Amino acid sequence: MRNIKLTIEYDGTSYHGWQSQINALAVQDVIKKAIKKLTGEDCNLIGSSRTDTGVHAIGQCANFFTASSIPPDKFSYALNNLLPEDIVIRHSEEVSKDFHARFSAKGKKYRYLIHNSVFPSALMRNRAYHVHYPLDLDSMKKAAGYFLGKHDFSAFKASGGSEKTCERTIYGASLNIDKGTVLLSAEGRQKNRPLVYPHDAMIEFEITGNGFLYNMVRIIVGTLVYVGIGKIRAEDIPDIIESRDRTRAGITAPAQGLYLVEVYY
Amino acid sequence: MRNIKLTIEYDGTSYHGWQSQINALAVQDVIKKAIKKLTGEDCNLIGSSRTDTGVHAIGQCANFFTASSIPPDKFSYALNNLLPEDIVIRHSEEVSKDFHARFSAKGKKYRYLIHNSVFPSALMRNRAYHVHYPLDLDSMKKAAGYFLGKHDFSAFKASGGSEKTCERTIYGASLNIDKGTVLLSAEGRQKNRPLVYPHDAMIEFEITGNGFLYNMVRIIVGTLVYVGIGKIRAEDIPDIIESRDRTRAGITAPAQGLYLVEVYY
Repeated sequence: MRNIKLTIEYDGTSYHGWQSQINALAVQDVIKKAIKKLTGEDCNLIGSSRTDTGVHAIGQCANFFTASSIPPDKFSYALNNLLPEDIVIRHSEEVSKDFHARFSAKGKKYRYLIHNSVFPSALMRNRAYHVHYPLDLDSMKKAAGYFLGKHDFSAFKASGGSEKTCERTIYGASLNIDKGTVLLSAEGRQKNRPLVYPHDAMIEFEITGNGFLYNMVRIIVGTLVYVGIGKIRAEDIPDIIESRDRTRAGITAPAQGLYLVEVYY
Repeated sequence: MRNIKLTIEYDGTSYHGWQSQINALAVQDVIKKAIKKLTGEDCNLIGSSRTDTGVHAIGQCANFFTASSIPPDKFSYALNNLLPEDIVIRHSEEVSKDFHARFSAKGKKYRYLIHNSVFPSALMRNRAYHVHYPLDLDSMKKAAGYFLGKHDFSAFKASGGSEKTCERTIYGASLNIDKGTVLLSAEGRQKNRPLVYPHDAMIEFEITGNGFLYNMVRIIVGTLVYVGIGKIRAEDIPDIIESRDRTRAGITAPAQGLYLVEVYY
């Protein structure tokens, strides 16, 4: 038996998340079915993260054991022929027997896109969170900095997670504007509708850490948006973290803006 | 009666183009229906361009006459409440009685996205043209330059257009890499699958001109891709233009990579 690691991109719009469930189609089901068709085997496909309904992945990782003689790097080509267009295996390789996509993960990077504009975007409707209030980007950047380091993130955790400890370490948390706006911010857009910067922009939030609690990134983003509209002050973030009180943080930002970018092993 | 100009963004994936047709749903139909619901009037909605099935718009323009007393700048808000999520009115304003979205247009800008990678992208599948052969970007840039200026573009025109003359002037034609890759080119992507530059990238082609023949941008892009894979030499572009022979140009690149960015009046 060989242990095969897959790196997977998917558009989460049409799926009930990564994890198999009764009466709902999950990404995991679709890939397992493709593996079964290819190898004839019912495998246990272990994913690094249980992404929620509507959440996307650029670099989800998963592993499974197989007796198949298909060369490890050819699984990507063979599976892509069997998968729908909204799930793509970007890479496949053989890994050591003790590699476990979830337990071996040392860290993860997530990206979250906020589309800040008067009107939502037709093209980015399932790819970003539309916020129509003007956002104060400088305050949001300041707020993001307070998440760095080792903290108990109980205030940024949805109920339902099964974590033993709520302590996590954040290595990076950055906010940038306009990098993702190729589809949207034509000069035309700016010219046709004169708006005060940054009130017609794509804001990209990236966060890297050794692990994340259930809905943690989306609650952090919801909190940053509250900072951006003045409902929470940036300087209050350390207190909110310290409080371990979910009700003091912001809303859970919607799923469609979230991307699992990379898993570190 | 007032003349109202709309600036429209749409995801063309689910529509049979802009123009109303029998037995197929067009963007024009959907907006006309929303106007009817709002004003009670059957209007003649004139679009600047008849975008094809699957082609997107960031800045399509259209105009219609109305007796309604709705303030011109409020049409966008009111119509967006009635429109599906994949069509958004970005701006509405009153224009002079003689403004005609098609005949008053002085020029247009289009954008075309080419996703150059071994595997297609799950997230950009309806947003870019996937080319898996490695592309020679320098030759493509050189080739793009030859389209500048006033030429008879008969070699870059699909049959079916009703144009009187095939002479058009191109003001700008540029190729850039990586601007649109926020969703795709995570460092992870590069790291996980070491590929030679630029064979895992989003290439953005922008072209501005006083007008475009039927399928002209898509045939130019198909020709640039032929240059990129070595099937046509960049230096042969002037000859191909001169020949006015459609069979000497490249294929018609697929619709889903094309965006109508702006219409100049």
